[in-house]
Amino acid sequence: MKLATLKNGSRDGRLVLVSRDLRRAVDAAPLAATMQQLIEDWDARAPALQALYAQLNEGRVPQAFAFDPAQCAAPLPRTHQFVDASAFLNHGNIMEQAYDLDVKKTPGIPVLVQRQSDDFCGPTDDYPLIEADNGDFEGEFAVIVDDTPMAATPAACAAKIRLVTILNDVSLRAHLFRELQMGFGFINAKPATAFAPVAVTPDELGAAWGDDGRIHLDLQVSRNGHAFGHPNGREMDWSWGELLAHLGKSRNLRAGTILGSGTVSNRAARTVGSACLAEKRALEKIEHGDSTTPFLKIGDRLRFEVFGADGQSIFGAVDHRFVPFA
Amino acid sequence: MKLATLKNGSRDGRLVLVSRDLRRAVDAAPLAATMQQLIEDWDARAPALQALYAQLNEGRVPQAFAFDPAQCAAPLPRTHQFVDASAFLNHGNIMEQAYDLDVKKTPGIPVLVQRQSDDFCGPTDDYPLIEADNGDFEGEFAVIVDDTPMAATPAACAAKIRLVTILNDVSLRAHLFRELQMGFGFINAKPATAFAPVAVTPDELGAAWGDDGRIHLDLQVSRNGHAFGHPNGREMDWSWGELLAHLGKSRNLRAGTILGSGTVSNRAARTVGSACLAEKRALEKIEHGDSTTPFLKIGDRLRFEVFGADGQSIFGAVDHRFVPFA
Repeated sequence: MKLATLKNGSRDGRLVLVSRDLRRAVDAAPLAATMQQLIEDWDARAPALQALYAQLNEGRVPQAFAFDPAQCAAPLPRTHQFVDASAFLNHGNIMEQAYDLDVKKTPGIPVLVQRQSDDFCGPTDDYPLIEADNGDFEGEFAVIVDDTPMAATPAACAAKIRLVTILNDVSLRAHLFRELQMGFGFINAKPATAFAPVAVTPDELGAAWGDDGRIHLDLQVSRNGHAFGHPNGREMDWSWGELLAHLGKSRNLRAGTILGSGTVSNRAARTVGSACLAEKRALEKIEHGDSTTPFLKIGDRLRFEVFGADGQSIFGAVDHRFVPFA
Repeated sequence: MKLATLKNGSRDGRLVLVSRDLRRAVDAAPLAATMQQLIEDWDARAPALQALYAQLNEGRVPQAFAFDPAQCAAPLPRTHQFVDASAFLNHGNIMEQAYDLDVKKTPGIPVLVQRQSDDFCGPTDDYPLIEADNGDFEGEFAVIVDDTPMAATPAACAAKIRLVTILNDVSLRAHLFRELQMGFGFINAKPATAFAPVAVTPDELGAAWGDDGRIHLDLQVSRNGHAFGHPNGREMDWSWGELLAHLGKSRNLRAGTILGSGTVSNRAARTVGSACLAEKRALEKIEHGDSTTPFLKIGDRLRFEVFGADGQSIFGAVDHRFVPFA
C-alpha cells in the first residue's frame, strides 16, 4: 500500500492512504491517525488499511478525494531516529580520488552516520538556502523499520522493513569536509532532509525489491528541468538488511527508524549521471582538473522521482525550489 | 519545578511532578500527559504545572504519592533529536595527549555529535554489556529545549532551555576510535543513553545556573560504591547558548531536542577525578605509560548524582548495574 501525511497544522500531520496511481487519497483515520501511530502498531493496524487500499484502487471508496502532493509533509514528518548510510562505495571512491581524501574505512563495514530527525521537509516545500554554504542535493532511497531488537541478523532486520521511500539529503559542502575531518559526523553540513510525498510497502515494488535485498530501480534526478542522472539502486554494496544489522549491533532500533542509502551512485556514472552535484564535480575534476558544475543557486528547482516497470511514479516526486534564507 | 516520567507500558510513559525533596509525586495529567506533550506546548501548559508544584512542595496535594526512581523511564523516554557535545576541551586534550590522536578541531568551533534518540534507558534499568566492547561511562549534564528557529543567537537559544538533567552516555571504546577515525561519528560505539529520573527547570539550580550560561555544580560519580570523580560543570568551554547556536546554525531545533555537555572534565582532574574511565585511563597512561583502571565489568554499579548547596539531590541519581547481554 501507499501512504502519505497531509499537513494539518499538527507536528505529526494526518495520515492518508494514496491510490497506486497517486490520484486519490482517503483518510487513514480512524484505522491510524498518524504515520507514527501506524508504524508503532503495524501488525494490528496494517491489515485493515491494506483492505481499504484495495477498495481505494478499485474506486470503491466514496469519501476518497484528489491527492495533492503539495499538501504533503514528509511521510513521517519527524521521527525518533534517522541514520544515513554511504552504501554506494562508488560514490565515496570518486570523492576520495578527486579530493585526495583519506577516509579510514574498515573493509566490509558500511559507513553510517547518525542524523537529526526532528524537522523534515515536505516534498514541495521551498527550501531556504545560503549560497555561500555551497549547497548540494543527494538523491537516496530510504526504508522505515519496525521495532528491531539489538544484534538482530540481516534477515531479521530485513523482515522489519515496513516502508520504502526516496529523499533529498540536502548537504552544505562548505561545512562538510571540515566536519568529516574532525571525526564526529555532520552538524552544520546537514540541514533538514526533504522526503517524497509517498512511502510504500515493499510489495509495491514487485520484482524491483530484489532477492538480493536491494532496490532495482533508477532514481531520476533533474535540475531545473534538465535530466541530471538516473543511477540504479541495485549497485548498493550492502543489502538493506546488512546495513540495519550493522546499525543495530549494539542497540535496539525503535519503530519509525529511517535508514537512508546514501547518494545513489553507479560505476557507469559517466553515462548514467549522478544523484548529487559533488559527484559530478568530482568527475569533472578527475577528468579536466577542475569542476564546472556550480553548487546550488537560489531559484534552482530539483526533482527526484522513481518509476516502476509500468511507467507509474512509485513515490511521487521530491520537487522543490531553493529560495533565499530570510 | 521537577518532572519525571513513570513507566506505564507506553512508549512515552506517564508524566509526574516531583517534589523538590524528591519524596512525593503527583500525576501531571490532565495538565500534561507526557513530557513530549509538555515540551511541545510549554508556554500553555507549564504555568498550571508550576502552581501544582508549589502545592506539592507545601504538602497540599492529597493525591500525591511516594516517588520511586526505580519506576522511572528517562524524563523524555525518547525524543526527536539528541546531540552530544564534547564541550570540556580538557577531556579531549587529555585523550589526544594519551593516545596521540589527531583530531582536526577548528579553534572556537565546538565538537557536537548527532546521536540516536529512539531508545533511552531509565535511571535504574539494568544495562546489558558485552565486556569485549570495552564499555565505559560518561557523566554529563544535559538540557532540553523548546522550538528554536535556525540561526538563533546564543542568547535566544539559551532562552529556549526548558529543562536540565544529567545522563550516563555509555560508550563502547572497542568501536570508538575506529569510528572516530572514519569521520562519520558514532554508531556501534554509542549504545542507549541512561538518564537521571528527574529533569528540572533552570530556576531549580538557583545561583548554580551561572550568569555565564554554565552549570556550577559538581557531578558526583561513583563506581561500585567508591567515589570516582566529582568534576564541576563551570569549566565548560562554551555556554549552553553558544553550543545550541552552533547546532542550529543551518537548521531549526524542534521542541524536545536534548543537548548533552560531553564528559564533564576539569583541569584539576588529577585531584577531583574524572567522569569516565577513558579519561582516568588516559591520565594513567600519560603518567605511568600504562592504564590500570579496567573498563566496565559485568556486575559493575555506576552512580551519578548532583547535590545543591543545601545538600539536596537535584535530579535524583542514575544508579544502574551492568549485566550480561542475553
